[in-house]
Amino acid sequence: MPSQPSRTLDPIPNPHPDSTYEVEIECPEFTALCPATGQPDFGTITFKFVPGPYICELKSLKLYLWSYRDEGHFHEDVTNMILKDFVRVIQPKKLEIIGKFNVRGGIYTTVRATHEQP
Amino acid sequence: MPSQPSRTLDPIPNPHPDSTYEVEIECPEFTALCPATGQPDFGTITFKFVPGPYICELKSLKLYLWSYRDEGHFHEDVTNMILKDFVRVIQPKKLEIIGKFNVRGGIYTTVRATHEQP
Amino acid sequence: MPSQPSRTLDPIPNPHPDSTYEVEIECPEFTALCPATGQPDFGTITFKFVPGPYICELKSLKLYLWSYRDEGHFHEDVTNMILKDFVRVIQPKKLEIIGKFNVRGGIYTTVRATHEQP
Amino acid sequence: MPSQPSRTLDPIPNPHPDSTYEVEIECPEFTALCPATGQPDFGTITFKFVPGPYICELKSLKLYLWSYRDEGHFHEDVTNMILKDFVRVIQPKKLEIIGKFNVRGGIYTTVRATHEQP
Amino acid sequence: MPSQPSRTLDPIPNPHPDSTYEVEIECPEFTALCPATGQPDFGTITFKFVPGPYICELKSLKLYLWSYRDEGHFHEDVTNMILKDFVRVIQPKKLEIIGKFNVRGGIYTTVRATHEQP
Amino acid sequence: MPSQPSRTLDPIPNPHPDSTYEVEIECPEFTALCPATGQPDFGTITFKFVPGPYICELKSLKLYLWSYRDEGHFHEDVTNMILKDFVRVIQPKKLEIIGKFNVRGGIYTTVRATHEQP
Amino acid sequence: MPSQPSRTLDPIPNPHPDSTYEVEIECPEFTALCPATGQPDFGTITFKFVPGPYICELKSLKLYLWSYRDEGHFHEDVTNMILKDFVRVIQPKKLEIIGKFNVRGGIYTTVRATHEQP
Amino acid sequence: MPSQPSRTLDPIPNPHPDSTYEVEIECPEFTALCPATGQPDFGTITFKFVPGPYICELKSLKLYLWSYRDEGHFHEDVTNMILKDFVRVIQPKKLEIIGKFNVRGGIYTTVRATHEQP
Amino acid sequence: MPSQPSRTLDPIPNPHPDSTYEVEIECPEFTALCPATGQPDFGTITFKFVPGPYICELKSLKLYLWSYRDEGHFHEDVTNMILKDFVRVIQPKKLEIIGKFNVRGGIYTTVRATHEQP
Amino acid sequence: MPSQPSRTLDPIPNPHPDSTYEVEIECPEFTALCPATGQPDFGTITFKFVPGPYICELKSLKLYLWSYRDEGHFHEDVTNMILKDFVRVIQPKKLEIIGKFNVRGGIYTTVRATHEQP
Repeated sequence: MPSQPSRTLDPIPNPHPDSTYEVEIECPEFTALCPATGQPDFGTITFKFVPGPYICELKSLKLYLWSYRDEGHFHEDVTNMILKDFVRVIQPKKLEIIGKFNVRGGIYTTVRATHEQP
Repeated sequence: MPSQPSRTLDPIPNPHPDSTYEVEIECPEFTALCPATGQPDFGTITFKFVPGPYICELKSLKLYLWSYRDEGHFHEDVTNMILKDFVRVIQPKKLEIIGKFNVRGGIYTTVRATHEQP
Repeated sequence: MPSQPSRTLDPIPNPHPDSTYEVEIECPEFTALCPATGQPDFGTITFKFVPGPYICELKSLKLYLWSYRDEGHFHEDVTNMILKDFVRVIQPKKLEIIGKFNVRGGIYTTVRATHEQP
Repeated sequence: MPSQPSRTLDPIPNPHPDSTYEVEIECPEFTALCPATGQPDFGTITFKFVPGPYICELKSLKLYLWSYRDEGHFHEDVTNMILKDFVRVIQPKKLEIIGKFNVRGGIYTTVRATHEQP
Repeated sequence: MPSQPSRTLDPIPNPHPDSTYEVEIECPEFTALCPATGQPDFGTITFKFVPGPYICELKSLKLYLWSYRDEGHFHEDVTNMILKDFVRVIQPKKLEIIGKFNVRGGIYTTVRATHEQP
Repeated sequence: MPSQPSRTLDPIPNPHPDSTYEVEIECPEFTALCPATGQPDFGTITFKFVPGPYICELKSLKLYLWSYRDEGHFHEDVTNMILKDFVRVIQPKKLEIIGKFNVRGGIYTTVRATHEQP
Repeated sequence: MPSQPSRTLDPIPNPHPDSTYEVEIECPEFTALCPATGQPDFGTITFKFVPGPYICELKSLKLYLWSYRDEGHFHEDVTNMILKDFVRVIQPKKLEIIGKFNVRGGIYTTVRATHEQP
Repeated sequence: MPSQPSRTLDPIPNPHPDSTYEVEIECPEFTALCPATGQPDFGTITFKFVPGPYICELKSLKLYLWSYRDEGHFHEDVTNMILKDFVRVIQPKKLEIIGKFNVRGGIYTTVRATHEQP
Repeated sequence: MPSQPSRTLDPIPNPHPDSTYEVEIECPEFTALCPATGQPDFGTITFKFVPGPYICELKSLKLYLWSYRDEGHFHEDVTNMILKDFVRVIQPKKLEIIGKFNVRGGIYTTVRATHEQP
Repeated sequence: MPSQPSRTLDPIPNPHPDSTYEVEIECPEFTALCPATGQPDFGTITFKFVPGPYICELKSLKLYLWSYRDEGHFHEDVTNMILKDFVRVIQPKKLEIIGKFNVRGGIYTTVRATHEQP
């Protein structure tokens, strides 16, 4: 088996920097571990962003999310970590990240984090 | 059988106080008693909040809602009681609580209570 | 069989007059008669209101809607009649009433009436 | 207002007695009274039948169901009463009647009664 | 067979001219002909309006829509024609008409036309 | 406008007479007139058949159904008329025709007629 | 608050013992405790039965299910306990009980138990 | 087989230039090739526009989208290319184009591009 | 751009020839050309089979379906062609192929072809 | 982080060996690796079984499925491996296992394996 991928996102130049558009990317196959119990957690991570200089290469995004597979993170934490990585590398004008996590203990949790360029 | 849990919520420090984000927590397993008839009532309690200094530990939230199991409360009352407890302990910047109760007498009732920090 | 109930709504004091909240009550079992043909009409009446001094006792609401069972009313008329009764007795800060009526002659009709306290 | 219709069904000759076919008629606007409380009950009555010498005129079926509006009947009883009337007048080769009644006390009841010509 | 109805709408006086309300009427059985091919087209016409001096008598609305059955009209054209007729006769304070037409050539078309009283 | 098409179905030779297969064709745009009131009726006609020597050319099927547009027929009758025409021309090994008609007077009617080659 | 009800079902004589019919009763408000953790479990209990000498009085069924509220039972166990009580008191010709329980640990469990009179 | 169509859109004069209306056109049969792998991509292209001097002839729109069938384009790129062609030829007052592409590598991508006349 | 793939399916040895199991493979991205008009057709091809000596390598199945992209075939024909190729190469004990094609001229067509080993 | 669990299922004695019943367990959080690419695969594993001497302890089932998280398996293979383990340890009278896997390359795969006690 190949080893776990490193945590990187590949920016590619925005092909239409003169256009106003939004990109929405839904990734229903996110999994990490619960930091309290060590058991697997599952969820869907959705990105909605208005591109600045870059858009995001999709295969690198897939590998980026895969890199969380063996790490323990709370829902609120991991959603904001992903937001900060995406902002740093892709530099969107506006960004919303929605982490919708599977039910645990009869409770469904969704975290919506947003960023807007100053 | 263990006895009924006490009515407490555990705040945990907001791990990303510099971020703007919203947390939505849906709890479809709320039950209390009807104060008029003493018979069980059922519903879903949903919390949507923008965290201030704290987020809410989920297991304590589950036990908190469980603590209503043997008490009698009207729908409008219990939704606002939960709002006030959550505001006092978790101190969110903004909060909306939605209590969606099961049909009774052919009538479906939903209560939406909101709070915003001054 | 018991005779048809009288047309009254029971106000009960708002248990949380210091809170901002909305109550939504959906009643899918409304029936009256068509004033043109005398045949039964069916629909769902939904109330959304921000309580003022009172909330509405649910059993009285059920009996109130039942009292239309043998009367003939046009859709636009009966929705506004219910609005005016509710405003007079329950004195909400804001109120929306939605009457969604079953298909007749291949046509579906919905009436939305609103009231806001001056 | 017109008075309540009498309880009759109008048979019309089967226009294709040499064909094998089934007719399904769904009537979502059935209402009667609860014999225990006198309060209105609501439900959907569905007929599925293989016609014998007759099919059923639809307007008479509508008036027939309307004739139950002010009478009190238990769910199991009224479904079988309708079955027996339909069998007597329309004489189907096979018949299934499904009475699907609205929730009462948190409980949903459906009654399926069948008849087959000897 | 009866001949095709004439193209008229019957206004009836607004029974609650002192109320603020909206009427939504959905008519899923609209059919006309394609002016290019002469073949039948199908669609749903929905009216949402805030009544002024009048509301619209529903049977006349049904006959009005029926009157298009044998005529050829493009989607954009017929939606605006209906808008202008409705505005002229019913004189609504605000009106939105939505024509949602069945798929043709793998393409689904919806036309939304609006009018507001000056 | 072109005149109404004649009532014909075009058989085309079964391209795989050695295979066992079923063809299902759903036509949601059927309209005729109600023989009682002269007003338009609407419905969906579905054919499920095991081909014998022929399959059915789709454009001719469309024109065939169109030919009912200005005629008055009861639901049970028209479904069986279509069955008999299809059996005569296309000669299927097995055939089921389902006519699912739009609600009239609060009642939904579906007719299922079947034919099997002796 | 009233104390917990005793565990009884009330049989009432089958009003149509000469008919063949099935009764389906769906109760989405079942709750008991998990015998392992003492925490509340939730589920929907559905009964489908062909009546013998009796049908089941619905209010007694509601109280019967309520009587499990403070007891600990595994899913497979409680579904079969309910089956045996129902068979003993109501004596149906055939019975199926379906216990559909809420997700626990990411796992959804459904138990279907059946009984047929010898 | 006919050869691939050329890339043109046919403007037709706006039949109601004095009206305010929006046209929505949904085309679920878009396919092009992935520029990275050469394999087919699939998606739905939706246009929402407020017409200026022209509306768009639908058959030319179908042929226009067909013309991408054998070309390789990234999702963000092709959505903006279509936007620019539509703006140039049809000259809408406002336009939104939504490209909703099928899942690839477990990821769903949607691109929303907008244009407004200065 | 890469050229169109050749029409082959890769069998791989059944890893559990001693088990009884069924494999269902749904491919919603099938496209070919209409032999009458030359315009693109779209559909979903589903395979349900009980493996004999082989199962089917999925990438080869994807390329196999892709190979139809530029060819003209009628729905009944192409579904049976795929059936015969699959039977010849994969040699399933039982096979059902369902071709569900997009609406054309207001008509939806589905073809179900089956094969069973003698 | 805790290390990966070992591959065991815990049988517990059937609490109602004299009853006829079926247990259905749906586990939507299965993940393993693709043996061809090493990338994560996701799916839902459902068990339907008629218990023999044992039922299955749910926590052990959760850990059992978790134990596949870092291993590479083809869909047909892993579904049958799980079947054989379950049959060996839990010894059901009848068993069906359904592995429904997420889309890969535009293709959805479902595997249904069954076992019946001789």
